[in-house]
Amino acid sequence: MSLKLGMVGGGKGAFSGGVHRIAARLDGQWELVAGAFSSDPDRAAESAADLGIAAERSYGSFAAMAKAEAARTDGIDAVAIVTPNHLHVPVATTFLRAGIPVICDKPLATSVEDAEALVTLVAETGLPFILTQTYTGYPMVREARTLIAAGRIGRVRHIQVEYLQDWLAKPVEISGNKQAAWRTDPAQSGPGGCIADIGTHAFNLATFVTGLVPTAVLADLTAFGPGRALDDNAAVLLRFESGAKGMIWASQVAPGSKNGLRIRVAGEAGGLLWDHERPDDLQYTPIEKPTRTLQHGGDGVATPGRLPAGHPEGYLEAFATLYAEAAGQVRAYRGGTKPSINILLPTVSDGLAGVRFISAAARSSEEGGIWVGL
Amino acid sequence: MSLKLGMVGGGKGAFSGGVHRIAARLDGQWELVAGAFSSDPDRAAESAADLGIAAERSYGSFAAMAKAEAARTDGIDAVAIVTPNHLHVPVATTFLRAGIPVICDKPLATSVEDAEALVTLVAETGLPFILTQTYTGYPMVREARTLIAAGRIGRVRHIQVEYLQDWLAKPVEISGNKQAAWRTDPAQSGPGGCIADIGTHAFNLATFVTGLVPTAVLADLTAFGPGRALDDNAAVLLRFESGAKGMIWASQVAPGSKNGLRIRVAGEAGGLLWDHERPDDLQYTPIEKPTRTLQHGGDGVATPGRLPAGHPEGYLEAFATLYAEAAGQVRAYRGGTKPSINILLPTVSDGLAGVRFISAAARSSEEGGIWVGL
Amino acid sequence: MSLKLGMVGGGKGAFSGGVHRIAARLDGQWELVAGAFSSDPDRAAESAADLGIAAERSYGSFAAMAKAEAARTDGIDAVAIVTPNHLHVPVATTFLRAGIPVICDKPLATSVEDAEALVTLVAETGLPFILTQTYTGYPMVREARTLIAAGRIGRVRHIQVEYLQDWLAKPVEISGNKQAAWRTDPAQSGPGGCIADIGTHAFNLATFVTGLVPTAVLADLTAFGPGRALDDNAAVLLRFESGAKGMIWASQVAPGSKNGLRIRVAGEAGGLLWDHERPDDLQYTPIEKPTRTLQHGGDGVATPGRLPAGHPEGYLEAFATLYAEAAGQVRAYRGGTKPSINILLPTVSDGLAGVRFISAAARSSEEGGIWVGL
Amino acid sequence: MSLKLGMVGGGKGAFSGGVHRIAARLDGQWELVAGAFSSDPDRAAESAADLGIAAERSYGSFAAMAKAEAARTDGIDAVAIVTPNHLHVPVATTFLRAGIPVICDKPLATSVEDAEALVTLVAETGLPFILTQTYTGYPMVREARTLIAAGRIGRVRHIQVEYLQDWLAKPVEISGNKQAAWRTDPAQSGPGGCIADIGTHAFNLATFVTGLVPTAVLADLTAFGPGRALDDNAAVLLRFESGAKGMIWASQVAPGSKNGLRIRVAGEAGGLLWDHERPDDLQYTPIEKPTRTLQHGGDGVATPGRLPAGHPEGYLEAFATLYAEAAGQVRAYRGGTKPSINILLPTVSDGLAGVRFISAAARSSEEGGIWVGL
Repeated sequence: MSLKLGMVGGGKGAFSGGVHRIAARLDGQWELVAGAFSSDPDRAAESAADLGIAAERSYGSFAAMAKAEAARTDGIDAVAIVTPNHLHVPVATTFLRAGIPVICDKPLATSVEDAEALVTLVAETGLPFILTQTYTGYPMVREARTLIAAGRIGRVRHIQVEYLQDWLAKPVEISGNKQAAWRTDPAQSGPGGCIADIGTHAFNLATFVTGLVPTAVLADLTAFGPGRALDDNAAVLLRFESGAKGMIWASQVAPGSKNGLRIRVAGEAGGLLWDHERPDDLQYTPIEKPTRTLQHGGDGVATPGRLPAGHPEGYLEAFATLYAEAAGQVRAYRGGTKPSINILLPTVSDGLAGVRFISAAARSSEEGGIWVGL
Repeated sequence: MSLKLGMVGGGKGAFSGGVHRIAARLDGQWELVAGAFSSDPDRAAESAADLGIAAERSYGSFAAMAKAEAARTDGIDAVAIVTPNHLHVPVATTFLRAGIPVICDKPLATSVEDAEALVTLVAETGLPFILTQTYTGYPMVREARTLIAAGRIGRVRHIQVEYLQDWLAKPVEISGNKQAAWRTDPAQSGPGGCIADIGTHAFNLATFVTGLVPTAVLADLTAFGPGRALDDNAAVLLRFESGAKGMIWASQVAPGSKNGLRIRVAGEAGGLLWDHERPDDLQYTPIEKPTRTLQHGGDGVATPGRLPAGHPEGYLEAFATLYAEAAGQVRAYRGGTKPSINILLPTVSDGLAGVRFISAAARSSEEGGIWVGL
Repeated sequence: MSLKLGMVGGGKGAFSGGVHRIAARLDGQWELVAGAFSSDPDRAAESAADLGIAAERSYGSFAAMAKAEAARTDGIDAVAIVTPNHLHVPVATTFLRAGIPVICDKPLATSVEDAEALVTLVAETGLPFILTQTYTGYPMVREARTLIAAGRIGRVRHIQVEYLQDWLAKPVEISGNKQAAWRTDPAQSGPGGCIADIGTHAFNLATFVTGLVPTAVLADLTAFGPGRALDDNAAVLLRFESGAKGMIWASQVAPGSKNGLRIRVAGEAGGLLWDHERPDDLQYTPIEKPTRTLQHGGDGVATPGRLPAGHPEGYLEAFATLYAEAAGQVRAYRGGTKPSINILLPTVSDGLAGVRFISAAARSSEEGGIWVGL
Repeated sequence: MSLKLGMVGGGKGAFSGGVHRIAARLDGQWELVAGAFSSDPDRAAESAADLGIAAERSYGSFAAMAKAEAARTDGIDAVAIVTPNHLHVPVATTFLRAGIPVICDKPLATSVEDAEALVTLVAETGLPFILTQTYTGYPMVREARTLIAAGRIGRVRHIQVEYLQDWLAKPVEISGNKQAAWRTDPAQSGPGGCIADIGTHAFNLATFVTGLVPTAVLADLTAFGPGRALDDNAAVLLRFESGAKGMIWASQVAPGSKNGLRIRVAGEAGGLLWDHERPDDLQYTPIEKPTRTLQHGGDGVATPGRLPAGHPEGYLEAFATLYAEAAGQVRAYRGGTKPSINILLPTVSDGLAGVRFISAAARSSEEGGIWVGL
């Protein structure tokens, strides 16, 4: 039996909603049955109809939806929040208070205070809360984490992450690109532009893969696009508790990369490289040995994919893995048993860490590029 | 409303069934409701239960399934055939005669005669018949076809295809690998081993991308695995009606490649390269210009993916595209309207061409490596 | 003390002469002191002057050069032959008869008979004779040979070589390209076009790397260029004494590749891939282990480069290695001691093998694509 | 007629000397005739003998060499300085005062004061002074500079450079590695370790390619090797006068990279990527167009290599280009004519810029990672 999913946001013209829907469906564990797809009632209704949602479960507001679904005996098992950033907290709060588990886009919030309040609320309710840091769902990202945890590259010295896009190279937000419009608007995105939209993915990946605790950040954020209020390019240094160092270059004005997320980790006993442009491969170099190319499900690799090695998997599969694991959490909660801890699935705490990172980076940059504690 | 799918084969331990199920589900157009998942009744029932199929629609034989489903008012809209090769024709014949559209794995048949009979039957019934030549579903394979059809590389001169795996490098069929066992058994696979299992994909890709008509084949097939009855390595030359030449290297004993399908086309005015290990990219070289890397949904590219450029897509998405398009064919048929011709979706005729290729290649090789007409 | 080199051919406008000169100079073992750089006396003299050759050692004919240099006490230690193919044998014969060691471009000859006669002459004179199969000088090609000889990939099953260029995609020989003019003229090139010019490199590489003995060839040669007398595209199958199989695709009409030589070897216990577009890397896959990237001078690699790993080396260094080793042969000969056998340096016998390959391939193709013994 | 070269340093066991000698020889413009190859007289004499240098021109000290060579009518035309860093200035000063042009390794000096004094001295003497920033000699690095100068990527926004090695991942300096010993010793290397040895190359490349003027640097330098006195890992931010931003990651403890220098430039109208691991290629992305792969001597590329496109060239060729151009400078000087300005050949001023970068980076890091003006 599949679980019942509701969605807030993600109507026509939005990128994220469609991706969530495929991801939820791919492993056959979720069925979309309700939604408040847009703040525009016509668009909401039209989107619901297109998606085959019963009219009575297409809601004009997320508040109405939370109330109605909580009251139904066949109400949704979880809600997916795919709105612009500034709505994540109000929507999540509403559903959590209605007793409904949450699957939420990143960044979690537009302020540290909001994020902290949400962490508290999740703890109080005991409800499952999953943050869709999609890249943590890639098999070879998880293999990298496994190798590091097993000491295969020794003590980590340096972490280098880049996340490069080019879609804001021109000022597309003033020529009708809806995605660009809200992402470059502080009222909807919060204090960070590029640093919040993709920098958090880079930051999350660095900590997910290495397990290290970041202690300070220094950022030089720039808005290159003419008239742009939020940064579109971020040069970031990191320091970790262990003494390791890190760098992040996140940019949405880097022609040549469409969605180029790449992480390298240098350790005392080896190195790792993962590149989102070739996600099935993980380059692993044991010190003083040749570099090996590891592939999910391949020889000498612990992490399987859905398919045998050599069959490319991508973004949708990584996303679907989060939904499949979210289903496990929700089933356990519904069943009254404590879900086994899934240390791989991003939580509200990871969301708070990301918001703190954005906030500290923004402050660092405003003050001219100084070190700020995390 | 999604369509109702039945499946023959694909029970526990089979590779192909699970892939078909994800592919069918991914775009939300199909719901699996019935199956004859195994010739072993216990395994069939167990697989059905695992898949959430109602017990009454889990059948002990494909014949029983065809009869019962045809009789139901809510019977299946199509059947997916994911058995070993030798069952494709009997199963397909049974369902076609019961008036049920077919989605069938390749190769279509184990003899040219069987394949021809099936072509005739499809024509007589007028039913949709889709052959799952998965690789034709990749966006950049389709873009390659589009560029060639538009004359962007001029008249085609040479087509080079390789399809390399390594899983039969050791004699795994004698140590319990079920996939290997039937694929190396002439009784279940037909006269071709590697040439049938993956050589047909290479052959199909060559004709799909270029649209050229092959006229002759010369093959040097080898069974390197000790005691192996069917070829595991195929060296093939092709000639086309237009004067173009072609080569195929298909191997299941090539360490270093897990599922390495690669096609290059040299034309008078340019060249193309597509590599399944990096399926989002198509290398396009207009003559006397630098090579460009084209990406689905990217700049200057006609063929979209499900996601924006830079978001990797893979095998499951390509497969899902065939299922989505199959849904279109079936809906049109059910609706009584003639389906619009989808020239991209592989048909029973493509299946016949593949079987003729296998047959001719096997004969060429048996006679010492001579040219055989197609 | 460096050795003294003479050169026949290689005047202004020729590609090969300049390459030989850098290669000879790079390791400081050879000094160019004499030449018959062109059959055109003015061009010969002008080229000599440009190269700083004393006027008295700039000759109007290779015959005059051989006679004069043999008579000098400070005569050349070896002659480099860099003429069009049809002159290789007459020039080499003349210098060998004058007692002068020879460094000769490939292919050795334009007929098997000529090549056989030269083999006999070399044996009679006991003079060093080096054939410049440049690609055998690459460190990672040699590492591949070493690994195979050491059994690291087990018994070889299949050898796949391709050598792709695009410079003859248009009929440049009729618009003044001197290189193209002689290479497409049977009178100067012999019976093979592409098969002789680059196919021999592919064939030589296959045997150099594996040490296998080829027994039969089947070729489908095509002249795609309008009005072209010699093949510009070659599809070739090979059989080896050991039972191994091989394929060669050589083309000079393949847009996308400028000088794309690539070899893969599939063995029972592993596979190798070397690609001239990235010559510092050798991909090595031990069976059931991940692929490793080996680099000259790098971890776990026996073959050094001139520089530490990570410093790219290329065509000129590979060529220079042949000249450096040729110097060793010539010094040993001059010193009256028998040169230690350098099994890596291509000889007149390798040249004969190449000419037999060209001849057999041409015959195979003429007769419609049949198997011809080697 | 080739020019006469002397060398200081570069005796047996040194890396740099052999590389300089091949580079000097490759284009046939320089002949090595004199040297003070080591501060150890035996080693100096032995090295000279090995190199075929006349005993009278093998000197026990660089001072003796400068004096004697200046006095000879056939004295050297230039001296190559390939010593550890701390000797660059004293040696260069001595030869410049003796009227002899200088070709000097980087970094120019171990203090800004020394570097400034040398700039003054070069200006006073009017002598040619070439700094061997090798990477500026690569054809595709120069093509990148040309494209940017021509406005092909528009106004530059961000420059990302990395230079990664792994040879200091273990504390090899305490186990007999001579190269490591001096490079990790502040007395011989100056205040910078990795930042001086390879960070300067990265910095130089950033300015060479873009022509931008750097105004401030912030560095987080770390010595990860146990007991190591100098940094082996450098995280660096840059700001440029134009408003452009930059980042450098230089590391000698990064397993997976042997000599991995890579630069990316993001501009308003396009992007560029050059990677030393594949130096023949330059990735060029005009905005909203597919990425093109440019190759030296290839279609649509202004910068030639020594060989046609498709023939790999590497480090030695890049280095040789500096020597060939240095020969032009020295010939012009000897001829009494003012050398035409070669804006591509690195000068003493580039050396000063590099030393200022090292000094500022070291200070920034010492003070906890603050911005320091350049």
